[in-house]
Amino acid sequence: MAIITLTTDFGHKDHFVGTIKGTIYRELEDAKIVDISHSISPFNIQECAYILKNSYKTFPEGTIHVVGVDSDPTPENQHIAVLLDNHYFIAANNGVIGLITSEIVPDKIVEIQIPNPVKSSFPVLDVFVQVACHIARGGTLEVIGRPFDQLSDLKEFAPRISDNGNSIIGSVIYIDNYGNVVTNIQKKMFETQRKARNFTLNARNKKIREIHNQYSDIINFDLDKNQRKGPGDLLALFNSAGYVELAIYKSDLNTVGGASTLLGLDYRDTIVVEFE
Amino acid sequence: MAIITLTTDFGHKDHFVGTIKGTIYRELEDAKIVDISHSISPFNIQECAYILKNSYKTFPEGTIHVVGVDSDPTPENQHIAVLLDNHYFIAANNGVIGLITSEIVPDKIVEIQIPNPVKSSFPVLDVFVQVACHIARGGTLEVIGRPFDQLSDLKEFAPRISDNGNSIIGSVIYIDNYGNVVTNIQKKMFETQRKARNFTLNARNKKIREIHNQYSDIINFDLDKNQRKGPGDLLALFNSAGYVELAIYKSDLNTVGGASTLLGLDYRDTIVVEFE
Amino acid sequence: MAIITLTTDFGHKDHFVGTIKGTIYRELEDAKIVDISHSISPFNIQECAYILKNSYKTFPEGTIHVVGVDSDPTPENQHIAVLLDNHYFIAANNGVIGLITSEIVPDKIVEIQIPNPVKSSFPVLDVFVQVACHIARGGTLEVIGRPFDQLSDLKEFAPRISDNGNSIIGSVIYIDNYGNVVTNIQKKMFETQRKARNFTLNARNKKIREIHNQYSDIINFDLDKNQRKGPGDLLALFNSAGYVELAIYKSDLNTVGGASTLLGLDYRDTIVVEFE
Repeated sequence: MAIITLTTDFGHKDHFVGTIKGTIYRELEDAKIVDISHSISPFNIQECAYILKNSYKTFPEGTIHVVGVDSDPTPENQHIAVLLDNHYFIAANNGVIGLITSEIVPDKIVEIQIPNPVKSSFPVLDVFVQVACHIARGGTLEVIGRPFDQLSDLKEFAPRISDNGNSIIGSVIYIDNYGNVVTNIQKKMFETQRKARNFTLNARNKKIREIHNQYSDIINFDLDKNQRKGPGDLLALFNSAGYVELAIYKSDLNTVGGASTLLGLDYRDTIVVEFE
Repeated sequence: MAIITLTTDFGHKDHFVGTIKGTIYRELEDAKIVDISHSISPFNIQECAYILKNSYKTFPEGTIHVVGVDSDPTPENQHIAVLLDNHYFIAANNGVIGLITSEIVPDKIVEIQIPNPVKSSFPVLDVFVQVACHIARGGTLEVIGRPFDQLSDLKEFAPRISDNGNSIIGSVIYIDNYGNVVTNIQKKMFETQRKARNFTLNARNKKIREIHNQYSDIINFDLDKNQRKGPGDLLALFNSAGYVELAIYKSDLNTVGGASTLLGLDYRDTIVVEFE
Repeated sequence: MAIITLTTDFGHKDHFVGTIKGTIYRELEDAKIVDISHSISPFNIQECAYILKNSYKTFPEGTIHVVGVDSDPTPENQHIAVLLDNHYFIAANNGVIGLITSEIVPDKIVEIQIPNPVKSSFPVLDVFVQVACHIARGGTLEVIGRPFDQLSDLKEFAPRISDNGNSIIGSVIYIDNYGNVVTNIQKKMFETQRKARNFTLNARNKKIREIHNQYSDIINFDLDKNQRKGPGDLLALFNSAGYVELAIYKSDLNTVGGASTLLGLDYRDTIVVEFE
C-alpha cells in the first residue's frame, strides 16, 4: 500500500487534518498516512515548495503527496495530479511543486476532472483525498483527469547573477524553527560561480567569508572553552537541503533569538555574495 | 483492529501524548492511533465539541474516540463511555460530545467504573486508555461501567431566534487557523428561517448580504486582476462543517491578519442576521 | 517490528521530521514511528530529559528512541547508542538521557562509529536514523560502535537539601502546556525528608502547606458553587510524573494565565520547602 503524505497550511488545532485522515482510513483500511507539515504559513507557496522539495524524495517511490495550500479551485488555479521522479503529487496549479519541476521534468500531468464534483470550501477533502485513494488503489492519472500542459512556475525564487559574473544577488526564502535564515542560493550554483575565488557574503551589515558544512565547524576545540566561538556566534552554512543558510550557533527564537531576529532578516530580504 | 483517535488540550510539547501512545502500543501491538487535535484551548469544551463533531463521522464505524479535555473526575464530572452513531466516545461528562448528542440519540451510555482506580492527575492515561483498549479488544461497555442517564448538554451553543422570526441572534463559537470566525448558525437553520428572504448579516460594523459556498466565489474572474476582489476582502461562507463563517480572503494571522483580528471578533461575540 | 520514537527540537513546520520519516519508511516498509515531541525548546537538554524520562517506559520493551536535540557531533558531544531498561536510545552525549541514567544503570553504551560518515548538518538523519534502522532490523550495538564509558550527566537538575535536613532547595525544571510549573523535587525524596512533619512550600511570595494528587482535590463539593475554590486558585500537586508541581486550577496561558505567568516563575527559579 502506497504512503500518502500531507503537506498543508491547516495548522494543528482545527478538525481539517483529522477529517482527512478519517476519510482516507474509511476508504483504505491499511493506508499509511504521514504528516510532512501542517504549519506552512497560510497561502505561502514558497514555503510549501521549499518543504516539499526537501522531503518528498526521502519517501519510497510510488508515494502520493497531497498538497493542501491555496487549493481553492478557480479558472486560474486548476487542480492537478502529477507523476514525477516516480512520486505522485496532488495539488493546485500554483507553483507549490515548482522547485521540483524546475529541476525534474514531470512524466505526466493531468487536470483533475472528477465526476459530480461538490462545490465546497474544502477541496483537499472533497477532491484531493479522492484522487489520492484512487491512485493508492492502483488507479491511473488518465482516469481522473485530462492531459494538462500549463504547469505554473514558482515565482521570485531564483537568485540573479550580475552581468560580470562577480556577484550573486539572492534573497531569503525560508526561516526555520531555530530562526536560521535560508537563502535561495544553492551550493552547486555558488561553487559554479565562485570558480575557487575568495568571497564576501553580505547580510545586512554583516560580512561572512566562509561557508561551513556543520554548525560546530566554527568552534576550535583546541582552545579553552572561554576563548572559543560558541552560542550566539554567526555562521554561514550549506544546509542539509543544499542551500546557503545564515545561522546563530545554538539559537532559540524564544530566548536568545536567532539569525532572523538578530540580523533583522525576513522573507524576500536581499543577500549578496561578491567574488574577488 | 479499531482505530483509536485522540482529541485533547495537551499540546504538542509535553510528554502526555507520547505517554498515551506508548501505553496503547504496549497493550495493543497493532493499534492504529490517529491524532484529531491536541491543540484545543485548555479546558475549552466548546472548541472540543466543534472539532469532535466535524471529524468523528469521517472515521470508519467502530472507531474509538478518546477525548482528553477537562477530564479530572469529580462528583459533577463523571467519566463516561458512549456508543453513538456506531462510534465510541470516552470522555468526561462535561458537554464535549454535546454537539453530537444534540442531533443523535446515543445507543448506550455508561458511567465508567474500573476496579481499583488510581487517584491520579492523569485520568486520560489511567482510565480512558484502559477503557479504549478494552473496547478495541472487543469488550462491551457493560463490563466497564453502569448505565448512566445524566448526560450533560453543551451550554451556550445554540443561536436564538427573535419572537417575530425576523432575526437570528448567533455568536462566535470557533476561530480557525486562518482567523476565520465560525458562528453557531447552521446552514439548515438559516435556510429554514430565511424562507427565501433577503438578509443582512451584521458583524461589528460590517454588513454582509450574501453567503457563499467557496472562498473564491467573491472573485469575478472576467474582470482584470486589479479590478477584482481578492486577498484582504471580507466574505461570509457556509463552511465545510455547515456553519456560517466570516472570512478574509487569503488571510494569515501572522502577517495581514484574519477576520477575527481585522473585525475584532472573539469567542461569544454576537452576530445578528436580519431578514427583510 | 520495533517501534521507533522521535524526540526532537525540530518543531512542526520544517521538513526535518518528514525527511526522517520518509527515510525510515524507505528502509523499513513496516516501521512504526511515534512522535514523542518535536517541540522541545531548541537545545534545551533539561526539557528533553524530563519528557524522555516520563514517556519512554510506557512503550513496549525493545523500542528504539531517537533523540534529536543538540546532536551536532563534536569532540565533546559524541554520538552514542545506549541499551537500558530494555529500551534503546540513540542520542548525543549531552545529558538528554541523564534523568534516566541517574536512576537506572545502562546495560550497554557504545560510541557510534559508522563507516564513511557524511559530514553534515543533519546528523539525526544521516547517523541516528541509520543506527535506528540497524537496530530495528535486529542488529547489535557492537556492530555500529565501540564501548564507551564517559556518559555525561544532566547538570543542575537535582535539588539540594539543607545541612540540618529542614529544607529542600529545589528549582523549576519544566513548564507545561497549561503553564503548570514543575519542580525538580520528586515525591519520594520529599516524603523521605519530610518524615511526616508539617511543611511550607515557598514559591515567590506564595506559601503552600498541602500537596494534592488530583487537581480537583482543592474543591469541596459539599459547598455551594460560589463558595468553593475553583478556576484561578493555586495548588501544589504530585504530578503524574512524580514531581512537585505548582498549578492554577483550569489555567489557560492564552487567556487567564497559568502558574508560570501568574506567579512569575521561570526555568531555574528557586522553590524552597521548609519542614517544621
